[in-house]
Amino acid sequence: MDSYTYNSIHELGHGHGHVLQVEEVLHMISGVGENSYSRNSAVQKTVISKVRPMLEGTVRALYSKENFPRHFSVADLGCSSGPNTFTVTYEMIDAIVGLCHETGHSPPELTAFLNDLPSNDFNTNFKLLPDFYSMLKKEKGNDVGPCFIAGMPGSFYGRLFPSKSLDFVHSSYSVHWLSKVPQGINNNKGNIYMGKTSPHNVFEAYMVQFQSDFSHLLRSRADEIKLGGQMILTFIGRSIKDPTSRDCCLVWELLAKCLLDMAAEGLIEEADIDTFNLPQYNPFIEEVKTVVEKEGSFVIDRLETFEVNLDANDNEENKNYVFDMFTCGQNVSRGHRAISESLFADHFGVAIIDDLFERYAERIGEHLSMEKTKNFNIVISMERK
Amino acid sequence: MDSYTYNSIHELGHGHGHVLQVEEVLHMISGVGENSYSRNSAVQKTVISKVRPMLEGTVRALYSKENFPRHFSVADLGCSSGPNTFTVTYEMIDAIVGLCHETGHSPPELTAFLNDLPSNDFNTNFKLLPDFYSMLKKEKGNDVGPCFIAGMPGSFYGRLFPSKSLDFVHSSYSVHWLSKVPQGINNNKGNIYMGKTSPHNVFEAYMVQFQSDFSHLLRSRADEIKLGGQMILTFIGRSIKDPTSRDCCLVWELLAKCLLDMAAEGLIEEADIDTFNLPQYNPFIEEVKTVVEKEGSFVIDRLETFEVNLDANDNEENKNYVFDMFTCGQNVSRGHRAISESLFADHFGVAIIDDLFERYAERIGEHLSMEKTKNFNIVISMERK
Repeated sequence: MDSYTYNSIHELGHGHGHVLQVEEVLHMISGVGENSYSRNSAVQKTVISKVRPMLEGTVRALYSKENFPRHFSVADLGCSSGPNTFTVTYEMIDAIVGLCHETGHSPPELTAFLNDLPSNDFNTNFKLLPDFYSMLKKEKGNDVGPCFIAGMPGSFYGRLFPSKSLDFVHSSYSVHWLSKVPQGINNNKGNIYMGKTSPHNVFEAYMVQFQSDFSHLLRSRADEIKLGGQMILTFIGRSIKDPTSRDCCLVWELLAKCLLDMAAEGLIEEADIDTFNLPQYNPFIEEVKTVVEKEGSFVIDRLETFEVNLDANDNEENKNYVFDMFTCGQNVSRGHRAISESLFADHFGVAIIDDLFERYAERIGEHLSMEKTKNFNIVISMERK
Repeated sequence: MDSYTYNSIHELGHGHGHVLQVEEVLHMISGVGENSYSRNSAVQKTVISKVRPMLEGTVRALYSKENFPRHFSVADLGCSSGPNTFTVTYEMIDAIVGLCHETGHSPPELTAFLNDLPSNDFNTNFKLLPDFYSMLKKEKGNDVGPCFIAGMPGSFYGRLFPSKSLDFVHSSYSVHWLSKVPQGINNNKGNIYMGKTSPHNVFEAYMVQFQSDFSHLLRSRADEIKLGGQMILTFIGRSIKDPTSRDCCLVWELLAKCLLDMAAEGLIEEADIDTFNLPQYNPFIEEVKTVVEKEGSFVIDRLETFEVNLDANDNEENKNYVFDMFTCGQNVSRGHRAISESLFADHFGVAIIDDLFERYAERIGEHLSMEKTKNFNIVISMERK
């Protein structure tokens, strides 16, 4: 019999300039402080609300099938932490409850799995759960059945759930994160992502990494989603084939400029910028289609695109919105800091972060005073064949 | 359509002297610091190792059944955080893997749910997961099938999982925690638990609360465990019917004395001691049996008792153990602090905690220099009828 001696607690320790281990490092800023993802995820919230009609349609499609299961199992991939996590879960539950009410089905038991990388701040989510359950009970009463919300830590580029165990999978603003920085792009000097001045091999390497990752995501979910089950993925893409497209590269090009300024002032090493690249990719819509078709497990029901402003306060519902360069720059900078600080801090050290994102706020503010830049979003709804 | 505005982050805020909300307050000390549960849970580890043979027997019983499922779903109730969490999970997986190997079954897919209250430190557990998976792969190779470890936050005194979804439930050192402090025991003056000087109604109220809670636990698991599924619960009880038994009350009586000393010195209010009572109960073995039989969903396979020393370093394997009053007092005090600090801090304030447990270390050391006191443990293995 094996004796188990798993006693040592391994804390994640990282120096500067090492090879980025995305799974260990990447996480949105934890907790509920000023810079936290919880408080700086308004764009993500807007995106979720835009996808709501497609989500309802998808749930409706599931319900129209015969032998609808008495238990409904859903997963949210890349749930992150804070209110958005529960917005997605709520939207899924609400769509199911609404349709049960309409069709006269009695409400199913529901398990919702919140998935993210193991370094995600699940504690913040779990502490919100009792209030979420109370709200659900108060708002839905007996229209909602027993509801069980679990956390499932792990990378969605590999297996996460038992075979044929899920009815519905959802992901919002996560699939544009790659499993790792593409290999062989040490020559991407002065850039931290694909940029106008990137050599050709950089674009190629990013594309290949996306194709591989997205294919693994589909393959893993194909194992886990029941036949006829559904999946909706929303992520940032680009509107044209050209990978130097502004909607793809601009925000990180501006951040790279801030880093280069800091290098010029001797605050960081320029060599450190050259060796840093973001594990992200914003695919063109046709690339997405091609991978789904090639992988072969899913049939695409709908594939749509929509845009949201970089500053989420600047939206149709906010009638009183008045552009202010400073405020707007701060809003966007905080949003980008919340999602990417862990990566920059891991590579350049924590000490430069405040300075970096102050500079970024200024640059973004200036840029948006000249041109209203948007995130170009792709949302794809698929059925397991 | 409902509009969802679940935007506010509710931080748990508690003043002193209010009614204790066990579900919101109780948690082992988070993280991996000197006082953390992670580093002060040696007694719990010893207990887990003692129960291992029964766990193997139970898994063996499950395997002898026909139509053994290809997917195996297990839960650990009150998993806490740190290495013990994974010891239990490992023991469950190891028992399953060992028997598959023996019987020639190919390894099943396995989902293990780590359950604890929403305020538990799940983040520490999840950060250990990648290493745990690596270790499993390295040690077991292809003998272990796909393994998915999820967190399921919530009270085990209510429903946690879908109906008929679990094969096996395990809990170690959690069921002696009650869902709340028994009502109507404001007259338990100078005590913080049942003690020699407690009025009769206090013993009665604790017993009634245990009967109600344990019955709810059984009822909830009866819904969730498949027919023929198994459950093993290990918890601290007492060896005789008399509730003033030393193995039940002594450790908290000594802590109450420290609090009374501090009140005499004006460091805390004596009235605050009178209104504080621990949400814990150490049942007599016959009480446990009676509740199981009355609830009626489970048949008891085995019910055993065993003792472990209060200082976990003082065990049979540790041949070089030499009693030292100071070290021993510190060990036991840290162990009790790790499990109960959240409750004392919530009621008396954080400021007194260091002082309180320093005094406690001294008292415990003195006590153990005169008498070797042990935890009296009950372990019960049951099958879902």
